[in-house]
Amino acid sequence: MQSISHLCRGSCTLHIFCVESVWPLPQKLAISEERYPLSPTHFNFYYGEDQASIMKDCSLLDSAFTRYFPLIFPDLTSGNPPTTLPGLETFSQLVQQEEDGTYFINKTEIEDFPSFQYRGILLDTSRHFLPLKAILNTLDAMAYSKFNVFHWHIVDDPSFPYQSRTFPDLSSKGAYHPMSHIYTQSDVRRVLTHARLRGIRVIPEFDSPGHTQSWGKGQPNLLTPCYKGSSPSGTFGPINPASALSYIFMSQFLKEVTSVFPDPYFHLGGDEVNFSCWQSNPDVRAFMQKMGFGKDYTKLESFYMENIVNITSNLNKTSIVWQDVFDYHERIPKDTILHIWKGLPAQYKAETSRMTKAGHRVLLGAPWYINHIAYGQDWRISYNVQPLNFSGTEEQKKLVIGGEVSMWGEYVDATNLSPRLWPRACAAAERLWSDESQTRSAEAAFPRLQAFRCSLLRRGVRAEPLSPGHCSDEYRGI
Amino acid sequence: MQSISHLCRGSCTLHIFCVESVWPLPQKLAISEERYPLSPTHFNFYYGEDQASIMKDCSLLDSAFTRYFPLIFPDLTSGNPPTTLPGLETFSQLVQQEEDGTYFINKTEIEDFPSFQYRGILLDTSRHFLPLKAILNTLDAMAYSKFNVFHWHIVDDPSFPYQSRTFPDLSSKGAYHPMSHIYTQSDVRRVLTHARLRGIRVIPEFDSPGHTQSWGKGQPNLLTPCYKGSSPSGTFGPINPASALSYIFMSQFLKEVTSVFPDPYFHLGGDEVNFSCWQSNPDVRAFMQKMGFGKDYTKLESFYMENIVNITSNLNKTSIVWQDVFDYHERIPKDTILHIWKGLPAQYKAETSRMTKAGHRVLLGAPWYINHIAYGQDWRISYNVQPLNFSGTEEQKKLVIGGEVSMWGEYVDATNLSPRLWPRACAAAERLWSDESQTRSAEAAFPRLQAFRCSLLRRGVRAEPLSPGHCSDEYRGI
Repeated sequence: MQSISHLCRGSCTLHIFCVESVWPLPQKLAISEERYPLSPTHFNFYYGEDQASIMKDCSLLDSAFTRYFPLIFPDLTSGNPPTTLPGLETFSQLVQQEEDGTYFINKTEIEDFPSFQYRGILLDTSRHFLPLKAILNTLDAMAYSKFNVFHWHIVDDPSFPYQSRTFPDLSSKGAYHPMSHIYTQSDVRRVLTHARLRGIRVIPEFDSPGHTQSWGKGQPNLLTPCYKGSSPSGTFGPINPASALSYIFMSQFLKEVTSVFPDPYFHLGGDEVNFSCWQSNPDVRAFMQKMGFGKDYTKLESFYMENIVNITSNLNKTSIVWQDVFDYHERIPKDTILHIWKGLPAQYKAETSRMTKAGHRVLLGAPWYINHIAYGQDWRISYNVQPLNFSGTEEQKKLVIGGEVSMWGEYVDATNLSPRLWPRACAAAERLWSDESQTRSAEAAFPRLQAFRCSLLRRGVRAEPLSPGHCSDEYRGI
Repeated sequence: MQSISHLCRGSCTLHIFCVESVWPLPQKLAISEERYPLSPTHFNFYYGEDQASIMKDCSLLDSAFTRYFPLIFPDLTSGNPPTTLPGLETFSQLVQQEEDGTYFINKTEIEDFPSFQYRGILLDTSRHFLPLKAILNTLDAMAYSKFNVFHWHIVDDPSFPYQSRTFPDLSSKGAYHPMSHIYTQSDVRRVLTHARLRGIRVIPEFDSPGHTQSWGKGQPNLLTPCYKGSSPSGTFGPINPASALSYIFMSQFLKEVTSVFPDPYFHLGGDEVNFSCWQSNPDVRAFMQKMGFGKDYTKLESFYMENIVNITSNLNKTSIVWQDVFDYHERIPKDTILHIWKGLPAQYKAETSRMTKAGHRVLLGAPWYINHIAYGQDWRISYNVQPLNFSGTEEQKKLVIGGEVSMWGEYVDATNLSPRLWPRACAAAERLWSDESQTRSAEAAFPRLQAFRCSLLRRGVRAEPLSPGHCSDEYRGI
């Protein structure tokens, strides 16, 4: 009855009939007053004539069509709400219900594509372990908001929940609990599949050489022993960049994890390396001298990162690193993507200019650290970000591949993840998807975001309220 | 096997044997290293010899004993975790479990009583409707933290969810939804019973004359018609203080609600009255003239509040009002309790001085508006409050009956209530219960609060984390 064509990522035209507003706003949306009833019993999707032959075996779309039905007609189905690909998601947001329960959609012309190709959310599963269910629920909500990258900051100083096939001690000794607080290979596969079916890429981060305290528990001789005077103090610093064993371990470990996570991008971290432990260690100092680094430990860090980036490159992955790596060492391989996380607008804009001038692709994280909470409607701050408003040529602007919302885990676990993330993250979702010229006003976006928040709630996402009021289907989903 | 005496409110001595820390900290706690096993199959409570005859028919305690068992021995029971009275709660926090699953308690001497008699939490069910389950769960967590007053800010401008017997239109027209977003008489009774069994008083607030927009929907001729020039603008202001109908309605309505809520205290609001609508209305202006109030609308507000306080007094209730009423009108009846909600420490301390000097009992709310969130460990700010650190005599200090944590509902509903309230409210719980001289350091309290947060989680309260880490029984309860 209705035809949807071009549902795959990229340019997308929907010839459908509907009425309500959509979040994030499509590039072109023309809703007419002409109203068409939708009958659940006669509803079907089919490919347009021009796509029929190409799409015939597109199992991803076929399975999305199947999962999609109860989202449009919630009254007629039960069970977990499914998610959709971007075009289906838009369609599902346009279907409305009369008071008597009948469904309808207004005739609508849509042309749509994302403004930025990379629209990510970072979850931190090291500072607090997040149960699989919390991750899968986040993936659902991401698909509803058209985020397409799950940046899995899977390990860090506090714990190592990734269960490695090659080095099982990393989690058995480095996780908060060796059984209940780990991600098994099967858990990881479940996340990957759940994400793939929703058009979401999973990019893992194994941050080094800093942020690795938990690695040291299951992998002796990996971290740098810190010294107090002439003897070891018993504490450890970053991965030991002076030891050949470190590179042998990292090669083996990266070989495993780059095969477990199929995405062509891989996040290597590289942020916040504290030099004091390296400085205290006589072996590291001897290595510095041998390499001619003088007293400049940024050179040592660069040396380490260069090796790690090369290992990753040989494993056919494109590296993403935090901005620190560029700040210390501008000669990193050109195809390395730089992830900006520091500073206020003036600072991150200047950084974006410098990086793109050096020819690097850039990922903007700094303005969307939404683990930092404030009272009231702080989503407006996220919404007002202008990723391309920095000094640079058109060529430089094209190098900004997108942005990422970070939900660091110092104060976040499964008790508060969802309401802290949703709908606050939706502001960045629209900024990264929609045409900036049509979405300049947070005030104008507000009622549409409120409606979308109610959709999230109805679909089982514990999204917090933006102002006094209520949703019509409140608490049905949660 | 163990004897517990004096469990009722007030001075309390427990002769029990145990080890772990308790939140809030008892007035006197001496935990010895002597350890006693507890056998679930042989465990029993009985009254000490001196209480046996008095307590024989204390059904409140008997039912608490019954509900209490699964809290001490969670492995052996299933179902919803129950709650206890203060002494039982302390005991339950002292029982520990060996790795092999056996229970034990260290020999402990406790003498305990609360520093302040009034330890409240305000929930706002008007800006967002809170399902009954969310309220009951909050009452559970309150009992665990030894809060003893639930201040139910039940109606306000945005909605009127209380279903009145006398004026059913108030909710059928003033609630967000006349069926799904109301508290029926049976709902209210359920809250009252749940609270009573946990030693919690329920003090309702029916705030007037301001904050009453939702009242006007189901009660015509109650609110003041605002004027634009010489004709009504179509909008309404506070309750009309110039109309006899207002006082007749309030008498009837207060007669109902003071009988529904049995607590001897009753909160009448009286805050933030906007005078501009009154000023615009010719009838109100004529009334001002007749009463000789000149242009001073605070006199009109005082006149209204005086009448409402008198009506409430005749219904044998002690009134609580927000500080505005005192600020405008110092001659209110001496037994009226004043609730301080404004300002930074210097301001609320000065206000406390003034009020107690005038002989009023005072309730301190200002420092604990924890709906205002901030990044990080903001519980420390709540913890460092010193309610008696104001300029005044010993007699004045005795007039500070306690304090209250407010969780206003602009940005809070069932999606985020629990993690926003817990464990942040626990800081005030300890400040109001424990000896200030023993609980000066937030740093020293921190590990104990973390352990208590884990207890809340295990008992089914969605309490958010305070720092990176994990609980041993994480997510079992939620």
